[in-house]
Amino acid sequence: MHYNRLGRSGLQVSALSLGSWITYHNQVNASGAAELMAQAFDAGVNFFDNAEVYAKGESERVMGEALKKLKWPRLNYIVSSKFFWGLDRDSAGINRKDTLNRKYLMQALDGSLQRMQLDFIDLIYCHRPDPHTPIEETVWAMHNLIEQGKALYWGTSEWAADEIRAAYEIAERHHLHKPLMEQPQYHLFHRKRVEQEYARLYREIGLGLTTWSPLASGLLTGKYRQGIPAGSRADTQEWLRAQLIDPARNAAVAALEPMALELGGSLAQLAIAWITQNPNVSTVILGASNARQLSDNLGALALREKLTPEVMARLEALTAPHAQ
Amino acid sequence: MHYNRLGRSGLQVSALSLGSWITYHNQVNASGAAELMAQAFDAGVNFFDNAEVYAKGESERVMGEALKKLKWPRLNYIVSSKFFWGLDRDSAGINRKDTLNRKYLMQALDGSLQRMQLDFIDLIYCHRPDPHTPIEETVWAMHNLIEQGKALYWGTSEWAADEIRAAYEIAERHHLHKPLMEQPQYHLFHRKRVEQEYARLYREIGLGLTTWSPLASGLLTGKYRQGIPAGSRADTQEWLRAQLIDPARNAAVAALEPMALELGGSLAQLAIAWITQNPNVSTVILGASNARQLSDNLGALALREKLTPEVMARLEALTAPHAQ
Amino acid sequence: MHYNRLGRSGLQVSALSLGSWITYHNQVNASGAAELMAQAFDAGVNFFDNAEVYAKGESERVMGEALKKLKWPRLNYIVSSKFFWGLDRDSAGINRKDTLNRKYLMQALDGSLQRMQLDFIDLIYCHRPDPHTPIEETVWAMHNLIEQGKALYWGTSEWAADEIRAAYEIAERHHLHKPLMEQPQYHLFHRKRVEQEYARLYREIGLGLTTWSPLASGLLTGKYRQGIPAGSRADTQEWLRAQLIDPARNAAVAALEPMALELGGSLAQLAIAWITQNPNVSTVILGASNARQLSDNLGALALREKLTPEVMARLEALTAPHAQ
Amino acid sequence: MHYNRLGRSGLQVSALSLGSWITYHNQVNASGAAELMAQAFDAGVNFFDNAEVYAKGESERVMGEALKKLKWPRLNYIVSSKFFWGLDRDSAGINRKDTLNRKYLMQALDGSLQRMQLDFIDLIYCHRPDPHTPIEETVWAMHNLIEQGKALYWGTSEWAADEIRAAYEIAERHHLHKPLMEQPQYHLFHRKRVEQEYARLYREIGLGLTTWSPLASGLLTGKYRQGIPAGSRADTQEWLRAQLIDPARNAAVAALEPMALELGGSLAQLAIAWITQNPNVSTVILGASNARQLSDNLGALALREKLTPEVMARLEALTAPHAQ
Repeated sequence: MHYNRLGRSGLQVSALSLGSWITYHNQVNASGAAELMAQAFDAGVNFFDNAEVYAKGESERVMGEALKKLKWPRLNYIVSSKFFWGLDRDSAGINRKDTLNRKYLMQALDGSLQRMQLDFIDLIYCHRPDPHTPIEETVWAMHNLIEQGKALYWGTSEWAADEIRAAYEIAERHHLHKPLMEQPQYHLFHRKRVEQEYARLYREIGLGLTTWSPLASGLLTGKYRQGIPAGSRADTQEWLRAQLIDPARNAAVAALEPMALELGGSLAQLAIAWITQNPNVSTVILGASNARQLSDNLGALALREKLTPEVMARLEALTAPHAQ
Repeated sequence: MHYNRLGRSGLQVSALSLGSWITYHNQVNASGAAELMAQAFDAGVNFFDNAEVYAKGESERVMGEALKKLKWPRLNYIVSSKFFWGLDRDSAGINRKDTLNRKYLMQALDGSLQRMQLDFIDLIYCHRPDPHTPIEETVWAMHNLIEQGKALYWGTSEWAADEIRAAYEIAERHHLHKPLMEQPQYHLFHRKRVEQEYARLYREIGLGLTTWSPLASGLLTGKYRQGIPAGSRADTQEWLRAQLIDPARNAAVAALEPMALELGGSLAQLAIAWITQNPNVSTVILGASNARQLSDNLGALALREKLTPEVMARLEALTAPHAQ
Repeated sequence: MHYNRLGRSGLQVSALSLGSWITYHNQVNASGAAELMAQAFDAGVNFFDNAEVYAKGESERVMGEALKKLKWPRLNYIVSSKFFWGLDRDSAGINRKDTLNRKYLMQALDGSLQRMQLDFIDLIYCHRPDPHTPIEETVWAMHNLIEQGKALYWGTSEWAADEIRAAYEIAERHHLHKPLMEQPQYHLFHRKRVEQEYARLYREIGLGLTTWSPLASGLLTGKYRQGIPAGSRADTQEWLRAQLIDPARNAAVAALEPMALELGGSLAQLAIAWITQNPNVSTVILGASNARQLSDNLGALALREKLTPEVMARLEALTAPHAQ
Repeated sequence: MHYNRLGRSGLQVSALSLGSWITYHNQVNASGAAELMAQAFDAGVNFFDNAEVYAKGESERVMGEALKKLKWPRLNYIVSSKFFWGLDRDSAGINRKDTLNRKYLMQALDGSLQRMQLDFIDLIYCHRPDPHTPIEETVWAMHNLIEQGKALYWGTSEWAADEIRAAYEIAERHHLHKPLMEQPQYHLFHRKRVEQEYARLYREIGLGLTTWSPLASGLLTGKYRQGIPAGSRADTQEWLRAQLIDPARNAAVAALEPMALELGGSLAQLAIAWITQNPNVSTVILGASNARQLSDNLGALALREKLTPEVMARLEALTAPHAQ
């Protein structure tokens, strides 16, 4: 396993990490989660990503149970949670959904700690920007949670560059803990934010990235080249369908497969390896839901050194025209 | 129910909220309070106002008992308390009355938390300005209470604009939590402070308002047009009498009633609706003491959309000459 | 009783207050202390001064027992402690004597809280300046003790004006709690520091004074006019003797007595009343060790209004030439 | 015993102090440690140095047991720990070794407190610089540990002058606790860092030094003049061998011995006394592992006053050419 610094920090995260989104509770129970996490951990993975909203809190509960079983020393692993959407969305809970206000954040983290059975969470994220809460209010809440010892570092997910910069500068001015990392979507077909919008932030504020959706919800495994398999995400989640069956992208995917084989790996491994070569990416969060998939995905690092300038150029030519 | 941001914050308060002043303990016991609060909550109200001084602490105790019965999730409601007058006024307690000194504030909030059986109060207010305590001392105490997790946001009640501004600027300079909201009296006959004195504060520091006395102690229900009903506040509270039986104001009230009927509502609803149309008002604190009254008052929002420019102009012509 | 603000703060202290120096434990046990404190409290005294060093901690223990017996509401009284000399002076305890270093201060206050059986002490003082500890280190320790909720306000005792100013400015620069009050010796024969050296501090940083030794260790009661009574402090404490039997001062005292009688009071009352007329003095700490003395001393306020400009001029003429 | 201020602080450390490196657990068990510590304490030593890495945590455990036995008042002694290498170095623990990141530091100190059975450690050190963690991250962690009451002062060990200066200036800018002391290697043959590199830091930021290896791992006792004794450190620790048997240095040592005898002391005493005459050294950490050695080393202070300018010149001439 390779390890990278998480942005400007001294914390090292494994180049590949394991996320629980859409898998824990829904596809994987606590003992399944413990098995997958053990498999990843044995391969060197030290970061396990989570969020309050995943399976409405059940993903945190499942991971908590798994951690209890696994009995790893607390210093040996890093867990995260993310906050924005809240756990439920009834009308009486107007301050507990789609928000980064102080009230929600202070109480939401307490809930996560309880569900995960932990004293602190290593990384906490603002899961989305909240245009209705001043960034200063959110920065203060993040700072206070760290001062209280309930979290160690904080960051953002899918924030615009100017919002991240504002949070950093407000924290600098008021002597508060600064945001450290951002969790953006990043894969061969989704690149603009990471490659252009954030460019200045890597240099100037040392922003680190923990990227999600390395396989574009399955598109980059090639599974949608022949249409929509029953039970697949394109089948069950309508909002994803159009981009998953996009003909130009699937054609590009078809052209990538021989490249992967040629390099001695799978299509998924090639797609993941391509992300790890970006020096601004601290870790690629994998979404594997079974041992075979996870094992395949973890193999991506072997392909990384084979990404010669020539290979990179071919990848660029095939995917860039269809990327956003 | 409409919801507004509380000033510049990300916290949303219902446009109408429920206060416990003069009602809890005096007119309403814990089970009555729980019924009224449930009625309001079911109608979308999420903010319940209180103060240490109301019924000498009994109002907080009653609300605490009611909250215990109601078992609402803590994230779903907002409660406040306010501090200045203290719980009792014996001579030995010179530092616990009419003050915003650090000693009083630190100990007073602990008392409120105990009476309300809560770990924290969402909003704490400095109930009046204290000319004898430097604003810096009060800002530090408010900041420390928030840092200790005993409160989430702080504000003022009936402070002058320059005092609010001073508190904000001292907090900015010393990197402390800034005041967020002010609780002024505001109704058709009491407007200058909200409309003129604070004007710059809305724009420049994002001040939010939680207004009290929407019906001018009953004057705007029309109950004093025919004199002083026995047991009414004008009957029992001498300091209110003169303004409640003011002939010019009661004449204006008489002229408002046909307007209200014309718009399909009650006089009280019209008076309340008029306040909610002020974009700087985050919430109007209702003082209803029984289900019928509360139900009527909550109906005010239906009238709000009927406040056309023409209706507003007529309201202005009738009341502005008699307003302060 | 009159009450004054403690310097710039919003806290009110009785114009006369009760100290435990040289009395508690040595002359007065816990039940005696409780009686004296009750007598003072009933007369309106709300501030009870103490220090770690008084009777090597026993004075705090005695006061703690007395407070437990008295069961006053915590908001109704103010207690202090002071730190510098430490509890004992064995060679192994080099960091616990004559110092204001962080280690000593943090641990010493914990000891005081235990002895006094309190959760917090209202006022903590740096009992003397420590030329060997940077003022910044001491300011940080005082700030941290207040942030931890173990104290409410902090000040100094017998510091030079430039040291107090430095502490204030360092706290302002680093956004820490600022020193509020100073406890200097002040009486008719010891005036320069209070009247000249500190002059700028009252105006510019709002310094408050809690003064000690109002009767100049008994000199101003006239007891040394005829020599040294057996068992008196001049008899038992050699370091005090010379100034107590100073002939010029005792002659001045002799001349003050008829003035006191003329005004209808005692010599001690006149001396105390003179201090209370200084607007920069927040409270005069009395050292009475029995009910009669305390009763006499508390009567001083009655004389205060009789200090006409003429009386003041006569006092000045008699004492100023012999004052330092 | 002489006592020096620890750098600019008000804390006094004995000119000679006792370290547990390479001795506790390995050569000395808890009861042996208690005996050595008692011997040193009785001779006036008040500082006992330790580190997480010494004997992989066992040195802290041994000292904790010894302290429990000794029952000294907590104010009478100073203990340290240092953090960087971590307790173990398995691959899964990538964030717990060779680092000064926030996660490691926060958790590591908790471990030390447990092993030493203490509520707080007086001095905590960053045991080495970590080029991969921004100094700002480490300064914040040190500050937070002090604010939490788990440590009183913090410093560095073997940091470059620019790193120490950076830590100081970052703390000053963000109003955090500043580094106070550095623990460098310092003896007659290792002088450049202390004498040249740090020169400006003593004057400008009041840096204090707690120096280690006063006898150059035994070289300055003369034990390596005749080759390598079996079981000696040059025998068992290869990384030390070359410098311990360096002929030029051993020749210089041979020439020092008559000087020591002439002054009435041992070679080791002369070497230690020479360090104590450096006004920037707050304390010399001795590494004695038995009573006789310790007794000899503690005798060094007697030689200090005999270091006349002539003696110093002869020492300089003999050792400077072979020092780094």
